[in-house]
Amino acid sequence: MVQGRQACLVSEKIRLFTVTNHRHESRICEVMAFRFEIIKKDSSSQARLGRVNTDHGSFSTPAFLPVGTQGSVKSLTPEELVEIGVEAILGNTYHLYLRPGHETIGRLGGLHIFTHWEKPILTDSGGFQIFSLGSLRKISEEGVTFQSHLDGSSHFLTPEKVVEIQRVLGTDIAMVLDECVPYPSPYEYVKPSMERTSRWASRSLQSRRENDPALFAIVQGGVHRDLREESARALVEMGFQGYAIGGLSVGEPKSMMMDVLKWTTPLLPKDAPRYLMGVGTPEDMINAVSLGIDFFDCVLPTRNARNGTLFTSSGKISIKQARYAEDGRPIDETCACYTCRHYSRAYLRHLYLAKEILSSRLNTIHNLYYYMNLLVKMREAIREGRLLEFYQSHTSSQGLETECSPPFQSNG
Amino acid sequence: MVQGRQACLVSEKIRLFTVTNHRHESRICEVMAFRFEIIKKDSSSQARLGRVNTDHGSFSTPAFLPVGTQGSVKSLTPEELVEIGVEAILGNTYHLYLRPGHETIGRLGGLHIFTHWEKPILTDSGGFQIFSLGSLRKISEEGVTFQSHLDGSSHFLTPEKVVEIQRVLGTDIAMVLDECVPYPSPYEYVKPSMERTSRWASRSLQSRRENDPALFAIVQGGVHRDLREESARALVEMGFQGYAIGGLSVGEPKSMMMDVLKWTTPLLPKDAPRYLMGVGTPEDMINAVSLGIDFFDCVLPTRNARNGTLFTSSGKISIKQARYAEDGRPIDETCACYTCRHYSRAYLRHLYLAKEILSSRLNTIHNLYYYMNLLVKMREAIREGRLLEFYQSHTSSQGLETECSPPFQSNG
Repeated sequence: MVQGRQACLVSEKIRLFTVTNHRHESRICEVMAFRFEIIKKDSSSQARLGRVNTDHGSFSTPAFLPVGTQGSVKSLTPEELVEIGVEAILGNTYHLYLRPGHETIGRLGGLHIFTHWEKPILTDSGGFQIFSLGSLRKISEEGVTFQSHLDGSSHFLTPEKVVEIQRVLGTDIAMVLDECVPYPSPYEYVKPSMERTSRWASRSLQSRRENDPALFAIVQGGVHRDLREESARALVEMGFQGYAIGGLSVGEPKSMMMDVLKWTTPLLPKDAPRYLMGVGTPEDMINAVSLGIDFFDCVLPTRNARNGTLFTSSGKISIKQARYAEDGRPIDETCACYTCRHYSRAYLRHLYLAKEILSSRLNTIHNLYYYMNLLVKMREAIREGRLLEFYQSHTSSQGLETECSPPFQSNG
Repeated sequence: MVQGRQACLVSEKIRLFTVTNHRHESRICEVMAFRFEIIKKDSSSQARLGRVNTDHGSFSTPAFLPVGTQGSVKSLTPEELVEIGVEAILGNTYHLYLRPGHETIGRLGGLHIFTHWEKPILTDSGGFQIFSLGSLRKISEEGVTFQSHLDGSSHFLTPEKVVEIQRVLGTDIAMVLDECVPYPSPYEYVKPSMERTSRWASRSLQSRRENDPALFAIVQGGVHRDLREESARALVEMGFQGYAIGGLSVGEPKSMMMDVLKWTTPLLPKDAPRYLMGVGTPEDMINAVSLGIDFFDCVLPTRNARNGTLFTSSGKISIKQARYAEDGRPIDETCACYTCRHYSRAYLRHLYLAKEILSSRLNTIHNLYYYMNLLVKMREAIREGRLLEFYQSHTSSQGLETECSPPFQSNG
């Protein structure tokens, strides 16, 4: 089993791996402890400019982590991600555990070597996927039993096992197993679920070994203020290296999501990173950053890309529309991405209609570039103390003026 | 309508296009006539080392042209093709005519600008696709009526129209409309069909305008020696810029394909390029080169890649096999392609099983690199007068010793 936190172990891993793959021999064995630095706090909101340091390098916050579900950010190579400006990605423990299996990945040198992505990786706990399985899973105090969506095989995961899987994957940031409750869920269901998630978090922490990945807890509690507060207090009491807010963007109104952030983030340690899971739109991210969130992951830009929905500086477009059939302009005249530098809307529409693989690639490059560029501009705005101005200018250019209201301003 | 052969017209095209896309304004307007140079002839076979010059640059022969059916070599960007060593590609007139339509491509500046592939393009005539439609098409002396495989719409194409479509696409090498007869076909069917193909070739030539793309004729005649010879003689009499051998690799035995080449190539002009359509395997190509063929196109390396069949220096492998589940080695230890430099068989197997888009990309990069590298080595072998030795070494390393027999040697 491979562990990836300590210099000597990493050296050993590399040495072992070179038996079968000499190409990684020259890799620099740089090891850093997990650390979060806050570079600047915004004066008119809760926004922070920061940097997360890991064994595989660092990333600036606020950050957006593209989703590499099965060990690949769909359609792109690591080199392309780096060119787009991506500094960290997310991998799905549930998917990698089922296929090809964490032990296989461990024996092959860990997720970084397996996927050729050498920068930071955060893995989720699988909780969200398992609890999305509905009738295919059964929960107990000990853990959760579920059936694989791939072959129906039965699996039992405990909080301890989930920490172990992520250790073997060699991730940089691991998440605790949590129960993600659907929206809406009654108070009587959410309360005991949240309490169990807290007990699971405690067990996860207990099972942690020296040199393990950084471990983040996940605040749950549905849309109930006292439960969210209780969850946050209990987890902070235990002491994690970072805190995620889970169970959002599952169908609740936008304003409710922002309410949950407003209740929760003030209770989290100021010096630890805060991660809003599975969110979101550009506007969601700016709002959440103003409420003190440091990073995000979401399938939105990559999935939208594959479905032909593209972000532009003046709003989203659907590339399949007939109006683009002979449109020689790039997706966005102001965009400097590879796709916009070389291809017309007409060609992208053609590739989409012809179901060409290149369609997914070129669209994904563009949408991720849009997201990364948005984050760059957001960080600049925080640095220069003009995040509210940036939000207003963004929503105005997107034709979303009416949404330029609370929560952002009310929290200024 | 855009024509792309003459400096002034190309300038005009670029000027018109810049109305909607300023990015192409700085493009160098370099125009050359189509020209084929023979650099060296092999002493022990009919093989030739040469160079084809076009308005969009030149390519070395023997050459392999990857297939970009719908304006994209599936899954790859032009930059990746260039990195792999690709110097020219093929586009399918049938597909581009139906979607997005040649007139749309013409209005957008032609196929090169549309697809961002700036090097030579050869387009086929659509004959192969149309005659593969079976009951959906009807042939007459005037031309062929067929129904679109996309929407069932009815279309009528003549030899003249096919020349026009390719002119509007702005291809570098255009093919005449031909009837590609299935194997086996009776002599009584093949003879009148071949004669009509010759009449169509004559009409194609008549309809040619100054500054049109280079026009190649296609020798037909099934597997009947006298018909192949009659076809070749008739077409050579008309005088084309190049000659293709069509109607092969449609199910006939390999030895029969080589027989057809042996009958045909000696009748073709020594100073014109010879193109074997839709072929083939590495061994087919070496054999055909020894019989005087200059270039090839085939979907084999790209389609195989998407199906997980990969070429290696010691034979083909199927990446989906369980034996590769924890194989940390690259596809081919001797290969220098991007895929082999960075990814293990285990990862490629995982991507394939998980149906990740990146699977098609990485496999296509490898297979095309294998083909391009094979052609580089073939050209070196011709230059150094050791093509037979190269063939023997290739078949031996592939475990194909028994096939190292005629036709290659018998033609030495």
